[in-house]
Amino acid sequence: SSQHQNFQTNMLSIPDLIKKKRDGMKLSDEEIKTFIQAVTDKTIQECQTGAMLMAIWQKGMVAKETVTLTKEMMTSGEVMSWPDEWAGLVVDKHSTGGVGDKVSLVLAPALAACDCKVPMISGRGLAHTGGTLDKLESIPGFNIHQPIGQVQEILASVGCCIVGQTEMLVPADRVLYALRDATSTVDSLPLITGSIISKKGAESLSALVLDVKFGRAALYKDLNSAKELAQSLVEVGNGLGIRTAAVLSSMDTTIGRCVGNSVEVIESLETLKGNVYMHLFPIHLLRMTGLVSELPEGKKRISDAVVSGAALSKFQAMMEAQGVARETAQQLCSTHTNYYSILRKSKHQMELKTQDSGVVMDVDGLCLAQILHKLGAGRSQAGAPINHSVGAELLVSLGQRVNKGVSWLQLHYESPVPTPDQINRLQNCLILGSDANTQTCQQSLVKEIITH
Amino acid sequence: SSQHQNFQTNMLSIPDLIKKKRDGMKLSDEEIKTFIQAVTDKTIQECQTGAMLMAIWQKGMVAKETVTLTKEMMTSGEVMSWPDEWAGLVVDKHSTGGVGDKVSLVLAPALAACDCKVPMISGRGLAHTGGTLDKLESIPGFNIHQPIGQVQEILASVGCCIVGQTEMLVPADRVLYALRDATSTVDSLPLITGSIISKKGAESLSALVLDVKFGRAALYKDLNSAKELAQSLVEVGNGLGIRTAAVLSSMDTTIGRCVGNSVEVIESLETLKGNVYMHLFPIHLLRMTGLVSELPEGKKRISDAVVSGAALSKFQAMMEAQGVARETAQQLCSTHTNYYSILRKSKHQMELKTQDSGVVMDVDGLCLAQILHKLGAGRSQAGAPINHSVGAELLVSLGQRVNKGVSWLQLHYESPVPTPDQINRLQNCLILGSDANTQTCQQSLVKEIITH
Repeated sequence: SSQHQNFQTNMLSIPDLIKKKRDGMKLSDEEIKTFIQAVTDKTIQECQTGAMLMAIWQKGMVAKETVTLTKEMMTSGEVMSWPDEWAGLVVDKHSTGGVGDKVSLVLAPALAACDCKVPMISGRGLAHTGGTLDKLESIPGFNIHQPIGQVQEILASVGCCIVGQTEMLVPADRVLYALRDATSTVDSLPLITGSIISKKGAESLSALVLDVKFGRAALYKDLNSAKELAQSLVEVGNGLGIRTAAVLSSMDTTIGRCVGNSVEVIESLETLKGNVYMHLFPIHLLRMTGLVSELPEGKKRISDAVVSGAALSKFQAMMEAQGVARETAQQLCSTHTNYYSILRKSKHQMELKTQDSGVVMDVDGLCLAQILHKLGAGRSQAGAPINHSVGAELLVSLGQRVNKGVSWLQLHYESPVPTPDQINRLQNCLILGSDANTQTCQQSLVKEIITH
Repeated sequence: SSQHQNFQTNMLSIPDLIKKKRDGMKLSDEEIKTFIQAVTDKTIQECQTGAMLMAIWQKGMVAKETVTLTKEMMTSGEVMSWPDEWAGLVVDKHSTGGVGDKVSLVLAPALAACDCKVPMISGRGLAHTGGTLDKLESIPGFNIHQPIGQVQEILASVGCCIVGQTEMLVPADRVLYALRDATSTVDSLPLITGSIISKKGAESLSALVLDVKFGRAALYKDLNSAKELAQSLVEVGNGLGIRTAAVLSSMDTTIGRCVGNSVEVIESLETLKGNVYMHLFPIHLLRMTGLVSELPEGKKRISDAVVSGAALSKFQAMMEAQGVARETAQQLCSTHTNYYSILRKSKHQMELKTQDSGVVMDVDGLCLAQILHKLGAGRSQAGAPINHSVGAELLVSLGQRVNKGVSWLQLHYESPVPTPDQINRLQNCLILGSDANTQTCQQSLVKEIITH
């Protein structure tokens, strides 16, 4: 009788859909819609979702299938809508995650200061990559839970917000994301693309820049696989009608000097105050919105937004709009401030000294992050608590000549305290060399820009 | 912390196991044990089982992995044990399913009459292949649910029983079997092998003959894929210490003349009474037990057991041991009996007439079975009821010359009644030809014997 029904409606059953992908065939728009609806409605059996994810992992999807998958995931829940006058101005960036990546904290207010609208939906950290939301939550009162209506109000008044994914937004992704982890189907090009772009699609963006990292401390170790992902993301983003570009950047060491939560908020604020320079990869966004016509002009506007203090004001306004007390936000943003009067400082600090003299050739960002993770800065399971005060600050720069016995890393820790083995491994994160090799550690981070 | 634990015990997590198989690597004994234990304990997430089944479907398993998988499935529940004096004598056969396959009903008592012990665990029908248990349940009082202790008592007193799988037996297979159907991972060599042989392993057999069918009405349409399965079954059966052989037999038409439930019980009884001849493929079992040294001698002993009425007596004793009233069993086994005074007869019968004259070249067993299925003889979903009275009897033989207008099929039906389209399709199941081609329809059924 189920066969009869299939014949009448010309629809395949879930086992039929799995079989089709299992055998390496393309799924039609209608078939992908059926799968995603069943995932969203929870009418599919979990074992079937697991089998389909593995079949997709094994056989992949062509671009057309991935676009449909992404669209169906996007429309599985609420899709944001914006006032007509914001047309072309709603932008966001997404990073595939890196050690010490606090770019969002600086870029969102900087873009807002350039008249963009930035409805940034971000994630929490898992494993060694930090989460933007976790960093922001080290600020007392910062509330990452904002309903869609509130997001629009904050964008209207401030221009940017950084919030978590709500229950209403892309529910199909919430389900699939959790199962992918359990079923070892995380690293599948169509599944990664669907997960990232569906969330950005639900933000109804005009333009999107993707920061795809490769290297030792990134999800993708080599340029080629990162490039493949970047191309898929750009193709599908454009397929959804979002002007999309990707920046491929190397990630062997850390982004900036600080890794952790409180310490990264401090570094971001120092950048916004003009005291520290941070490379902001996704500056292409400004050109893509049409607010500037050339890249150097965009670079200058972003830089001006930081230097003038306009970006800092936006960050302050965003904090207040997202629940931080006015005095707290003001104090964090004032020129001479003691950050630790507001942010939690770890009970213990320790400085590691160089064990030799030489030129700083490399710092192993992955190893550093993994040890901080064990010390409580990250989490191994979704929902686990983290210790915002745990972190590290790099006291030397790549290419810098150092003598033996100089402090090169300040470690912020509480409980557990680092073991002798962990301290030894931290020491090995610092690679010193001779002058002759100096130039090798000063290569540019950005390798390639992909726009279509 | 879970990573730390993995490091200490040197065990991989479930996602790690999935990843390994996903990437086409071999799983170790310990890893397969972990998977099957998690399936049995239900500590694995269903999505993970689905993903693992699909990974196994995609990447397969080498013989060593399949042996371990089968062993672990087998020991996931109770394993039967037998008195020492039965050593070498405990035998069973398994068929991959065919239309009108009632071989078990005749072979089990025939083997018991040859001093074998046959603890036959059988299944119910699904889709177009009939189930031995369903056929037996058309006998009033026949109870296929027998606890293990009772099975041993029946084997001691009668020598054979035909029972259903209990909750205690091979629980891992019960779980996987249900999920394979839902996840389109049924047709995987290691998974089929594990499912079949684990159940036979739990019977603690000395010898096993597998009847692997190929052809239009079988699970496998071509000889090569059936042979591949036969080789896997024989290899793994022997790997578990069971003397195992496989018979490859073609299956385009029906086995015997009757298809249905009541009608197949009648045909089996007629065979046991010596009134009808039935080809019993798994006669190799006798040689494998050592009860006879040569195949022709085995053939003769089985044949003698039928001709002498010894097999019929065993069937009668088995019915009584499994709950059938003595009078009922006696009446079914008496020489001149009206079967329908005991078995349910369908309310309606219909005879189909030949629409031409010619030689019977072929009868499409699959098509016949599919229509009987729709008329209520089979089920589409596990647990659905079936109508034991629905069936069909072929009134002509392959190679027989028939005139136009002769009855060739008697159809037993109730509700639903066959539609004109179904009757038309039934008529097309009979293929008549000219004399010139007669020999093509008289080829031997058995193609090959595989013993190692």
